[in-house]
Amino acid sequence: MASKQMVHMNRGQGETSYARNSILQNAEQNRMRPLIEDAIADLVCSRSMVVADLGCSSGPNALALASIAVDAFRRRRLALRRPPPPAELCVLLNDLPDNDFATVVKSLVEFKRNNGDEPVLLTGVVPGSFYGRLFAAESLHLVCSSNSLHWLSEQAPQDLKMKGIPPYDVDANVRRERRAVVVGAYARQFRKDFIAFLKMRAVELVPGGRMVLSLAGRRSVDVASELTHAWESTAMILSDMVTMGVIDKEKLETFYIPIYGPSEEEIRQIIQEEGSFLIREMQVPELTSVAYSALITPARVASMLRAAFEPIIVQHFGSTESGEEGIMDEFVRTAERRWSLEGSLQDELAQNPRGILHVSLEKKLS
Amino acid sequence: MASKQMVHMNRGQGETSYARNSILQNAEQNRMRPLIEDAIADLVCSRSMVVADLGCSSGPNALALASIAVDAFRRRRLALRRPPPPAELCVLLNDLPDNDFATVVKSLVEFKRNNGDEPVLLTGVVPGSFYGRLFAAESLHLVCSSNSLHWLSEQAPQDLKMKGIPPYDVDANVRRERRAVVVGAYARQFRKDFIAFLKMRAVELVPGGRMVLSLAGRRSVDVASELTHAWESTAMILSDMVTMGVIDKEKLETFYIPIYGPSEEEIRQIIQEEGSFLIREMQVPELTSVAYSALITPARVASMLRAAFEPIIVQHFGSTESGEEGIMDEFVRTAERRWSLEGSLQDELAQNPRGILHVSLEKKLS
Repeated sequence: MASKQMVHMNRGQGETSYARNSILQNAEQNRMRPLIEDAIADLVCSRSMVVADLGCSSGPNALALASIAVDAFRRRRLALRRPPPPAELCVLLNDLPDNDFATVVKSLVEFKRNNGDEPVLLTGVVPGSFYGRLFAAESLHLVCSSNSLHWLSEQAPQDLKMKGIPPYDVDANVRRERRAVVVGAYARQFRKDFIAFLKMRAVELVPGGRMVLSLAGRRSVDVASELTHAWESTAMILSDMVTMGVIDKEKLETFYIPIYGPSEEEIRQIIQEEGSFLIREMQVPELTSVAYSALITPARVASMLRAAFEPIIVQHFGSTESGEEGIMDEFVRTAERRWSLEGSLQDELAQNPRGILHVSLEKKLS
Repeated sequence: MASKQMVHMNRGQGETSYARNSILQNAEQNRMRPLIEDAIADLVCSRSMVVADLGCSSGPNALALASIAVDAFRRRRLALRRPPPPAELCVLLNDLPDNDFATVVKSLVEFKRNNGDEPVLLTGVVPGSFYGRLFAAESLHLVCSSNSLHWLSEQAPQDLKMKGIPPYDVDANVRRERRAVVVGAYARQFRKDFIAFLKMRAVELVPGGRMVLSLAGRRSVDVASELTHAWESTAMILSDMVTMGVIDKEKLETFYIPIYGPSEEEIRQIIQEEGSFLIREMQVPELTSVAYSALITPARVASMLRAAFEPIIVQHFGSTESGEEGIMDEFVRTAERRWSLEGSLQDELAQNPRGILHVSLEKKLS
């Protein structure tokens, strides 16, 4: 359990914090708005609703999905001309226990203060892994989650760790030979985790309850490109740092980044196999689409990777000569150097089929 | 709202923290065990139960009432030989947003880890004032609260503040003359707050739901003794500090300690007037009873007052010459000096009718 808790975004409000380096994730949350609005429109039949955001993080994004849900709920009730007494909306925010919950609690105070009297807004924080039980049975109406479900439950895919297979070899030939084994192990771990996630939420949602999820994924099942998977950009930068002699090759070979982005087909199969949910909608907007491209600059992507991966990188590589701060500064410089040629980052992204999966699900009635 | 948030116990784990100076409060929580067990025995009819602790604070006491409830729930179900599937118990912890919730979240992780598989334990944190709405309508089965409900919703009784009447005058004659006005204003503020508390919980509890509360109170309606009220010990020490020239008389005259301990008769009247709850049991064990007397030493009581009142004292008097640390060290020294004669603290307590109210309530069915 302790080992799992290292997964949290960079804390606080400083220059390298997740709070200040999560603009891409926020753009992503805004793209979920229509799916959340549709789900709420289907659900607004009773006076009260309970909404949970799983993997809320901290900073401005922590309440973004909740805000969309509250807005949608309020406008929908106005449109339906529901009479008083006022409705109630309960918003529950979840993340792992090491998340910066002190900041989340302060955000909740602000959130309630800015809310009017309709609906009555009730808020809470539920720390813990969303691969286990979190909420009372049949107590939720809507579950949202953005940018979290690609994080695995384990520090590394169990198959790889047991067999001592490094996820990313500095030698390109070795890397190519092993790639199918590595990707297979990641895929099996994701499948196991996502099935657990669906089973837990199936217990916690009311019949007919909804889930709107977005997570890192890819647009095809093709695994030919070396940058198909969400962890590979970060591994590639660390590999450059090995070549430069900043970090040890042996250290890189035991460093597993616990994220996996499934393809549309893959996640569809898992959902159907698990069987508790109907797929209402699935979209895979490209990372290089117009909505994102303006946000994608080398400096911004490097800072975003730092904000998300600094805790696990420092935990693993922290004992280098350059120290904890040093290694992350070097990480950002290496990334910026790699993408220093105008358009090279965009090209890199365009050549690989990564995307973001948007999924809207409905819990079956029985 | 901002002004209310100063009410929190001393943070962290250090020597002056509430976590290390709340042994008396913990003894008090243990005395609530039979009332909680009785309430749970009445409620264990369904597979799932939601329990809330209002004013949980942080440190070892934050989960004390929750632990008692989980134990009682587990043992009661075993006694009834309920068959699987396993039952669910949801524990929700509340306090004001400035409470040390980062520590509370860590305690919750530990709490869940030490719990077995039965019942399935679900936990959450709900920040906010318990004089407002906190939980979804009819979502709670049992509300517990220890050592919190004597804190008023306002920094000072509204009547006193509006009229600019100091709560505690250094001059004993002036103090005696004003006492009825001061105590009356405190009593009116408490009545207003406690009625609001009962109304909110009446919405949030299921019909037949239970509340087990303990709060500072007194054994009689008599207001003759100068130490009848819970705030008076602290005011008296601060008054000694005025005499010694450590703090300004003017500062003391604008310092309101926002707590009030009602008599048994007073709280019974309020509950009956509000009308949502039946009184199942009411007890007023004496502070000087055997269970407590071993715990009551000058050093321990002084440290306990510091842990509870340091935030509001420092906020009000913080700009003295001796600085923030200085004023509280002086506070503890002054208190210990006052009670330095063996038995003088016990005598002081024996001469006044303070006690702790234990109340067990049941929400009426309609």
